[in-house]
Amino acid sequence: MIKVTVWNEFIHETKSEKVKAIYPNGIHKLIADFLACDDISVRTATLNMPECGLTKEVLDDTDVLIWWAHVAHDKVPDEIAFRVRDAVNSGMGIIFLHSAHLSKPFRYLLGTACNLCWRESGDSERLWVIEPGHPIAQGLDRFIEIPADETYGEPFGIPNPDKTVFIGTYSGGEVFRSGVCFERLNGKIFYFQPGHETFPIYYQAEIQKVIKNAVRWAAPNAPRRSLSCPNVRFPSDKEKGYVKQ
Amino acid sequence: MIKVTVWNEFIHETKSEKVKAIYPNGIHKLIADFLACDDISVRTATLNMPECGLTKEVLDDTDVLIWWAHVAHDKVPDEIAFRVRDAVNSGMGIIFLHSAHLSKPFRYLLGTACNLCWRESGDSERLWVIEPGHPIAQGLDRFIEIPADETYGEPFGIPNPDKTVFIGTYSGGEVFRSGVCFERLNGKIFYFQPGHETFPIYYQAEIQKVIKNAVRWAAPNAPRRSLSCPNVRFPSDKEKGYVKQ
Amino acid sequence: MIKVTVWNEFIHETKSEKVKAIYPNGIHKLIADFLACDDISVRTATLNMPECGLTKEVLDDTDVLIWWAHVAHDKVPDEIAFRVRDAVNSGMGIIFLHSAHLSKPFRYLLGTACNLCWRESGDSERLWVIEPGHPIAQGLDRFIEIPADETYGEPFGIPNPDKTVFIGTYSGGEVFRSGVCFERLNGKIFYFQPGHETFPIYYQAEIQKVIKNAVRWAAPNAPRRSLSCPNVRFPSDKEKGYVKQ
Amino acid sequence: MIKVTVWNEFIHETKSEKVKAIYPNGIHKLIADFLACDDISVRTATLNMPECGLTKEVLDDTDVLIWWAHVAHDKVPDEIAFRVRDAVNSGMGIIFLHSAHLSKPFRYLLGTACNLCWRESGDSERLWVIEPGHPIAQGLDRFIEIPADETYGEPFGIPNPDKTVFIGTYSGGEVFRSGVCFERLNGKIFYFQPGHETFPIYYQAEIQKVIKNAVRWAAPNAPRRSLSCPNVRFPSDKEKGYVKQ
Repeated sequence: MIKVTVWNEFIHETKSEKVKAIYPNGIHKLIADFLACDDISVRTATLNMPECGLTKEVLDDTDVLIWWAHVAHDKVPDEIAFRVRDAVNSGMGIIFLHSAHLSKPFRYLLGTACNLCWRESGDSERLWVIEPGHPIAQGLDRFIEIPADETYGEPFGIPNPDKTVFIGTYSGGEVFRSGVCFERLNGKIFYFQPGHETFPIYYQAEIQKVIKNAVRWAAPNAPRRSLSCPNVRFPSDKEKGYVKQ
Repeated sequence: MIKVTVWNEFIHETKSEKVKAIYPNGIHKLIADFLACDDISVRTATLNMPECGLTKEVLDDTDVLIWWAHVAHDKVPDEIAFRVRDAVNSGMGIIFLHSAHLSKPFRYLLGTACNLCWRESGDSERLWVIEPGHPIAQGLDRFIEIPADETYGEPFGIPNPDKTVFIGTYSGGEVFRSGVCFERLNGKIFYFQPGHETFPIYYQAEIQKVIKNAVRWAAPNAPRRSLSCPNVRFPSDKEKGYVKQ
Repeated sequence: MIKVTVWNEFIHETKSEKVKAIYPNGIHKLIADFLACDDISVRTATLNMPECGLTKEVLDDTDVLIWWAHVAHDKVPDEIAFRVRDAVNSGMGIIFLHSAHLSKPFRYLLGTACNLCWRESGDSERLWVIEPGHPIAQGLDRFIEIPADETYGEPFGIPNPDKTVFIGTYSGGEVFRSGVCFERLNGKIFYFQPGHETFPIYYQAEIQKVIKNAVRWAAPNAPRRSLSCPNVRFPSDKEKGYVKQ
Repeated sequence: MIKVTVWNEFIHETKSEKVKAIYPNGIHKLIADFLACDDISVRTATLNMPECGLTKEVLDDTDVLIWWAHVAHDKVPDEIAFRVRDAVNSGMGIIFLHSAHLSKPFRYLLGTACNLCWRESGDSERLWVIEPGHPIAQGLDRFIEIPADETYGEPFGIPNPDKTVFIGTYSGGEVFRSGVCFERLNGKIFYFQPGHETFPIYYQAEIQKVIKNAVRWAAPNAPRRSLSCPNVRFPSDKEKGYVKQ
């Protein structure tokens, strides 16, 4: 059983009638609903909860964290953002959606500005599969079409990805590395660009399939890794009593 | 002319007679002295200066920053560490020496714990050249021998390097990725392991050569990069007035 | 069920009494025997079989190919070596052992000379785990000790690995990237250095564990990928009849 | 002085009136003409010359080789293709243009099928700069517009690039990783997609700038690397007479 926590800042859905009409219970609830299945259990957490709902106990009990945020990145305290970073280093998988490219955990894990160009013009988007053999791309056609999304354009301020699974193009002519993978010690990271809050993108079957694939890909396959810096003894042939990790 | 700033926390040299005997003017002064030459100009900065000596003006005027630190990583305010990170993203090169693996700028740029195993037993070290074609390895033999250094051992908690230039092995049997390269947007990063403060390692000719090579490698080759997130207009054939970066 | 084919040039074991005494039925038989289990089925193939035992039918029916070779690399026709390369591109995993670093399939997949320095002096080796979270390193301690092996030394003429799982050090002082991962389209590649034919290294429990872990890691997780270069129609909004792959 | 050799199969320009009208002296001559300058000297070579014009002497005297080919990839003997591969491993830079993605040297260096989807419909192309800090992208705007080119589409059968400098998008909606960098030992590799023979693309100033930038980026910065596999002596403290490379 893969334990997923879906985190959402949950602001647009309470303040904008347009967004509320699309996601009446919040984006996090919709994502939680389509993910839950025989091998995936899901809980949710939001910005307004104590410690943003991301206590050490919650992170220790999370295999994959999903992050949606847009207008309140700075409301997440550094202490919580570093805690998420450390959990990923230890082995927790994490999936960043859409405007989470500017969230603290994404930027603190990648070490870059994660900036991009953008435009809200309702362009349609075509997401091309670049790596058809990647676990996240299984069950898809050559591309996914999204009728309308916010446009994101290059240059995207990220390190060279370990793998670029999707590249999107927009009716306005931009391109964007829309699905990219990274690793930070034992933890896997996937950034997936679709999902502006004013369009019903997370209802689209292919988008749901990508996120579900990504959860299974990002789930840890090793025990949590120690982040300590141990003093070790001499592992020579004569003195075998070295410290084990 | 490459403008280098050598930063040192400058604590051991003021508190330990042993270290003071080796580096009477501080590690930073010795490094500054051997770097200065026709195409490299050097200034120094230390922890006890206002803003750690790393004002925005200094960083804007620095091509390559060198960082030595050990016992006072937490004394560098996050604000300064993020400022260094952003300068690297914009294009400033940076070289981290020895125990700077736990410095805030290194960890904030890499996004990982940067932990390792260690032992102070005066092991000798042999630094093997793994990439003989890399600019940082030019002018070296197959390996460098260091009579005595602190032992650093794997696993080293870093992301997969873009290039591993040196791997060290110690008389106690450990191995360590002693010279590794990364990039973060326009900025080049080199970590180089030798240099414990109680041994005169920075007087060794091959070590000086490596650091000088690294300065030339890390010097920027493009204008400083914008880290902003601009709203852009429609770049279609009919409406060419797109925003230029 | 993962279908493994173990390929061996099978020459030393027929010509050298010393090697025959260690591997009386050939290295391939020993590897086949320790791999076979509930989820892994194994067959073997050798150089002296028609088409080296690697017909298109055999490769199509192989999930992971294991390759041991030393003195007869050039006896494998280019046609067979390219067939193996293409099978890996399509999705077959492959594990190269010890002196297979100079085999045609390894060199043709990596595109480099794959040269190294070597010495037969019976040095002991310590294989350090560099990536404790990697699937291939699961169930191991901090390092594996091998009482005697051929020494391999850097520089190892390979592209920058996607992941360095093991680095070995020898009693003579060399280091070597002993366990490295690559990908070529849908296929995963693992090179593992231990296994000189004059020492009983493949009887060692940790070595067997590494190879078994590597088989499970390298097994394909997607359908075989087409290597064709298709002419495609116009995928515009008006004409949706694009070619599907 | 960087010594460039421009290689062209030189077939379309002799057989097609349309192509001859655009490149009356061959694509190679046009490229040679715009490259030649104070720090770049250029010679050309074509398929119909003895040894394809690529003798060992020519390759030893070439810093950067440029490769254009389309319909006669198989006319280049494996022996020549491997010679080119080895020269790159030793340190020669190489730039592959357009349909050279299926040339033997490109495929033998990358180890993959290098296949893609394509269409000859005269789509316009917009080449976006993904890495504005990369040496190959200096002096360019946010994108380059090409009025008409052959369409190349993903998935492009290459290993994960070390750096993706350009991503192209076409008026038909495809995307393509149009400018990608790799390294193979000491040699740098750049693939650049524009340049179908029926359009005057190599006359475009921005395209010329990219190729000239790429030549300077790919020029070697170290002595040629040995590809031999030397037997080495024991480099212990007592016996220092190890083999030097």
